[in-house]
Amino acid sequence: MVETLPAADYIEFARPFPMHRGGVLEDFRLTYETFGQLNDRRDNIVLVLPGMSANSHVCSVARDPEAGWWEDFAGSGKPIDTDRWYVICFNYLGGCKGSTGPLSTERASGRPYQSRFPELSIEDIVDTIVMAVKALGMAQVTCLIGASMGGMCALALLTRHPGFVRHHINLCGAASSLPVSTALRSLQREAIRSDPLWAGGEYSPDARPIHGMTLARKIGLLSYRSGAQLNRRFSRSDQAAGKSAGMTHDFEVEDYLQANAWRFARDFDPNSYLQLSRAIDLYACLTPPQGGFQTAGLEQVLVVGVESDTLFPVAQQQHIAQGLEQDGAEVTFVRLDCPDGHDAFLTDLRAFGPLLEHFMNRIGSVLPAGRAERCLELHDERF
Amino acid sequence: MVETLPAADYIEFARPFPMHRGGVLEDFRLTYETFGQLNDRRDNIVLVLPGMSANSHVCSVARDPEAGWWEDFAGSGKPIDTDRWYVICFNYLGGCKGSTGPLSTERASGRPYQSRFPELSIEDIVDTIVMAVKALGMAQVTCLIGASMGGMCALALLTRHPGFVRHHINLCGAASSLPVSTALRSLQREAIRSDPLWAGGEYSPDARPIHGMTLARKIGLLSYRSGAQLNRRFSRSDQAAGKSAGMTHDFEVEDYLQANAWRFARDFDPNSYLQLSRAIDLYACLTPPQGGFQTAGLEQVLVVGVESDTLFPVAQQQHIAQGLEQDGAEVTFVRLDCPDGHDAFLTDLRAFGPLLEHFMNRIGSVLPAGRAERCLELHDERF
Repeated sequence: MVETLPAADYIEFARPFPMHRGGVLEDFRLTYETFGQLNDRRDNIVLVLPGMSANSHVCSVARDPEAGWWEDFAGSGKPIDTDRWYVICFNYLGGCKGSTGPLSTERASGRPYQSRFPELSIEDIVDTIVMAVKALGMAQVTCLIGASMGGMCALALLTRHPGFVRHHINLCGAASSLPVSTALRSLQREAIRSDPLWAGGEYSPDARPIHGMTLARKIGLLSYRSGAQLNRRFSRSDQAAGKSAGMTHDFEVEDYLQANAWRFARDFDPNSYLQLSRAIDLYACLTPPQGGFQTAGLEQVLVVGVESDTLFPVAQQQHIAQGLEQDGAEVTFVRLDCPDGHDAFLTDLRAFGPLLEHFMNRIGSVLPAGRAERCLELHDERF
Repeated sequence: MVETLPAADYIEFARPFPMHRGGVLEDFRLTYETFGQLNDRRDNIVLVLPGMSANSHVCSVARDPEAGWWEDFAGSGKPIDTDRWYVICFNYLGGCKGSTGPLSTERASGRPYQSRFPELSIEDIVDTIVMAVKALGMAQVTCLIGASMGGMCALALLTRHPGFVRHHINLCGAASSLPVSTALRSLQREAIRSDPLWAGGEYSPDARPIHGMTLARKIGLLSYRSGAQLNRRFSRSDQAAGKSAGMTHDFEVEDYLQANAWRFARDFDPNSYLQLSRAIDLYACLTPPQGGFQTAGLEQVLVVGVESDTLFPVAQQQHIAQGLEQDGAEVTFVRLDCPDGHDAFLTDLRAFGPLLEHFMNRIGSVLPAGRAERCLELHDERF
């Protein structure tokens, strides 16, 4: 089955799935994409868990040349080299990118779940992904990569499915949300719920709460990017002087936020946003009294944090690194001084690229001649 | 007139006031409060310019025992000692605390200005205050204190009314808003405008856009307080597990934000919020080619910034200090390492108190024996 796996497809489970926090899905499907070729030994599998608003399209490929959310980091000849690795990425349960979520039709009622979709948790997300990976014929993942919310999901996967993953990369992740990060996400959810078109989650498809979604996305953006980055990018420009006080977009930075947020609001389902956002805040990968996270079987681990990240501050990645080391993994923890804030794992190829390339070469069974040495030379001081 | 000035009153100007960005108020009034006694030489006058959401009630007094917004910092025996200084504080034009603003009745129409209130600017705010101070019989202010938006107003006052102020304290101020701060305020304004009850500014008094105001205030709060402060204060508490995904307040920090924001929304006029917030973003105290800000006559100046302030970062206070020094003032610049973020000037008496006390003693004509020495001893390294 694996050898003929379509590169972009879905897998369906026609049996009830009891959700972690109560409620049952009568069935579910997960959509996914793969990049590169699975080898005969099936030991080149890289499972990527993306951030909350990303999707399964990690990078452009011949079948779909559209740029992916990690375009510069994964692909042929990139740090996550799809000439060598078989990359698979799922759209999360509860989302709106083809996997079962609030927009899916509930068979019992014949209508979309919307507000009746059961309370989503990070545990449901990773359990369904592990079910899918196994059902697709892969008994173990060679390397699990999780970034942002994906880093949180990775911890859940590692603790709930010990032995399923050999190596792991955790980028800008966290074992639980800090109160101020919860507050920022809470405001995003409130913005959506405050839009009258949200209608308690029962909005009609042609009257979605776009304004609430737009505002939510803007609040999110300001927490993903560092202030310094925005201040560099935008001059303080006084385009105003109109008489419509408070009515118009007066400043350059407002146009930027509006364009990004509008595009996002157009493509993302509000109920999915609420579910995914809340799942992040509800999750906690607790440290048991005996220490570590009680993962098992992990070999090489790379944990990366960014000094300018205020949403998932670097102390949270340090916590992850320490916990996984206590579990017995060989952990490399890198604290990057990049200026871009939480989203640096998406924007700062210069800082992240060599780290990823070096790690992937290290865990690969054959190191391509020349490349690993160059990387080691460049970043020796970090390891 | 001055000797019999009521301690809480208003002053009315029955002539048209042309606004800086166009439009004319047919008349205006400013409400104010005073604390302490004006001396015979009229050289103990302290004019306080507060932050955007504060009012004229700086501290509790016999006539009004309610705690003021700067309760621990000003009053009898406090760092701004009202036994010695005559403190006066105005409610800003455009606000909703009794001075002329969008809620005031426009004589021509007989209705509240609401959306027809002319576009407010920081220049209007300080010009009306200087008119009022002079009309109350005070030719010069001994010490001008501005904090946050008040620090911005102080720069506008100093540049537009050279010679009117002898000494100055600028706390967590800025000469203009940074793009990321503008973005944060823009989102607050958008939250208000997105509430259907806002109705283009023509909301009815008994159906004000409380939800939009609440959300706006929460976004503001998260920019005033440091993340570290909120993280210390709130444990990550999972009170949720209800089935109403995204519907309820699940986390402790959400309850805190809601209580604060609701109280604020109850008492603050949405159109005033829009006007004041936008005035901050429109203002820029530019540095002319010849350097400095072109203020005149300033003697002693204290400028204080806080390392954890992300809204008005400490580089902005350094910029103020440098500019006023180029203007010829004797400037002390203090960079405080307090953890509370922008609002530290309201919350961190331990850090700010001795600085204020020392400065006020220094500019006073008679130093109370013992006190100044103690302060100098404690904080000598800072000066």
